[in-house]
Amino acid sequence: MSGPRVVALGGGHGLAASLQALRHLTEEITAVVTVADDGGSSGRLRDEFGILPPGDLRMALAALCEDTAWGHQWSAVLQHRLGGGGELAGHALGNLLIMGLWELLDSPIGGLDLVGRLLNTRGRVLPMCEVPLEIEATVLGAEPEQPQEISVVKGQSRVAATPGRVMSVCLVPDEPPASEPALEAIKLADFVILGPGSWFTSVMPHLLVPDLRDALVHTPARRILTLNVGMDDDETQGFSPAEHIEVLSAHAPDLTVDYVIADPAVVRPDEDGLREVAQGIGAELVVTPVRKMRRPREHDTLRLAAAYRDVILGG
Amino acid sequence: MSGPRVVALGGGHGLAASLQALRHLTEEITAVVTVADDGGSSGRLRDEFGILPPGDLRMALAALCEDTAWGHQWSAVLQHRLGGGGELAGHALGNLLIMGLWELLDSPIGGLDLVGRLLNTRGRVLPMCEVPLEIEATVLGAEPEQPQEISVVKGQSRVAATPGRVMSVCLVPDEPPASEPALEAIKLADFVILGPGSWFTSVMPHLLVPDLRDALVHTPARRILTLNVGMDDDETQGFSPAEHIEVLSAHAPDLTVDYVIADPAVVRPDEDGLREVAQGIGAELVVTPVRKMRRPREHDTLRLAAAYRDVILGG
Repeated sequence: MSGPRVVALGGGHGLAASLQALRHLTEEITAVVTVADDGGSSGRLRDEFGILPPGDLRMALAALCEDTAWGHQWSAVLQHRLGGGGELAGHALGNLLIMGLWELLDSPIGGLDLVGRLLNTRGRVLPMCEVPLEIEATVLGAEPEQPQEISVVKGQSRVAATPGRVMSVCLVPDEPPASEPALEAIKLADFVILGPGSWFTSVMPHLLVPDLRDALVHTPARRILTLNVGMDDDETQGFSPAEHIEVLSAHAPDLTVDYVIADPAVVRPDEDGLREVAQGIGAELVVTPVRKMRRPREHDTLRLAAAYRDVILGG
Repeated sequence: MSGPRVVALGGGHGLAASLQALRHLTEEITAVVTVADDGGSSGRLRDEFGILPPGDLRMALAALCEDTAWGHQWSAVLQHRLGGGGELAGHALGNLLIMGLWELLDSPIGGLDLVGRLLNTRGRVLPMCEVPLEIEATVLGAEPEQPQEISVVKGQSRVAATPGRVMSVCLVPDEPPASEPALEAIKLADFVILGPGSWFTSVMPHLLVPDLRDALVHTPARRILTLNVGMDDDETQGFSPAEHIEVLSAHAPDLTVDYVIADPAVVRPDEDGLREVAQGIGAELVVTPVRKMRRPREHDTLRLAAAYRDVILGG
């Protein structure tokens, strides 16, 4: 197969779920990945080497490994975190590999392309921007004892874990330059997919890079928005599915969407106003089971693949 | 090609040179590698995780990477040392990969076999023993101000750099168990090759593992001893080629050899007694150019391949 050209934007587990699903439909996949992580192994490598945080890029590469025993082994190896209690503990092997190739090639995109060739991954993994970013959020009640206070929470890992209600996010530096090949991929895509993923820290950041937002607004590609199946992330606790779409519109007022994909166990389109809010951004609401049976807060690869196929290739 | 079964024993650059040469002759290569390194990245990983030192194993794997652009890239990636000045600085990427797979599989040999499959290396890389070892040397004049003093120098990296004259080496723990698949490979081999390499710290250790020495003594394989082209390593400074063979005999009195390979720029067989000493262990002396033109202290892959071919396949 070769298939339609699809660009998936996001970060972390949500993007990985989209990529794993897309693998069943096409080989022409481009992942565009957030670069604002500041926690864990990525945060330490970023601090030590001043590089892009590799963790979300690694997860995307692992999701695109070959669908063979060899590819599955590579995927597990990339994701393996070193143990022990010493200086290496907690680093994902894939993060170290990506970092080493960045040193060897002195180019974020060249290094990722080489990892892709070495691991024979499908598609291409690109950072949304070639400089590391910070996320700052305006949060209502970030301190539980002051629930009506509005304050600024700095850093992706702290935003993701805030007990308050996130009102908006911005990037530091603001208006960063987009990665050129990502813009090119969006321009040439047949479909672009936003979400699923941590709404404020993995999905919205793409809309805060001006050139990327413009490319998404102007691409001739059809646009798909995939809502989360777990609606109770710390950062979006209390946000309804409709409010997730309203957050999107608030960060990118010009952006229209062709399809919104949601799970019937998560949304009640006839009661919660979701259908109307989706229509408000131009989208047809596609309600179809996409959750895992046993871990209902995660997208199921094959069900999500079926949903994408219905939209992308026709049911 | 498949080719004759060859087992090469050693460590470090010397073993890698043999393996790169053998790749031109056969796919049936087994590398048996010393596990006593205690310096650099290997030493730090060994200290932090209590594992076999991975460095010599990594060099052997890098030498056996595919002879394609993909394989050459993997080889360079394995050998790349992380930069910077932080906690990761100096670690070879291949060492971290090997270590991670040892954690994943909890088996030194299983982990190395998996690295081999992931990198599609030719042949197989085995540790000579599955527990990490120490090298201790009895040295004359280890302290330059006391040239007639005999003392014990502990640790491979210190032995390799001693300014004194090494009289003998031993392993701690002594009489360690050999790796079973290494014994099996030697039993089934058509040829076994000892050297080149740091004579006391990479070549002799194999003869100090009792089962390995016995396997080498009793194998029906033909035995090849490859002398160094750089005779001025710290640890063997002042040792003539003939004395290298005498060191071998001192550590393994029962071992006979079929061929000794030496470079004509390094030996003078009619003057230095080398031919007679070689004959003393049963060997035919094969004097043929095996050095690099530009870096004469290193074996040239193609010339060494030609020398091995003459001996293994016939000229």
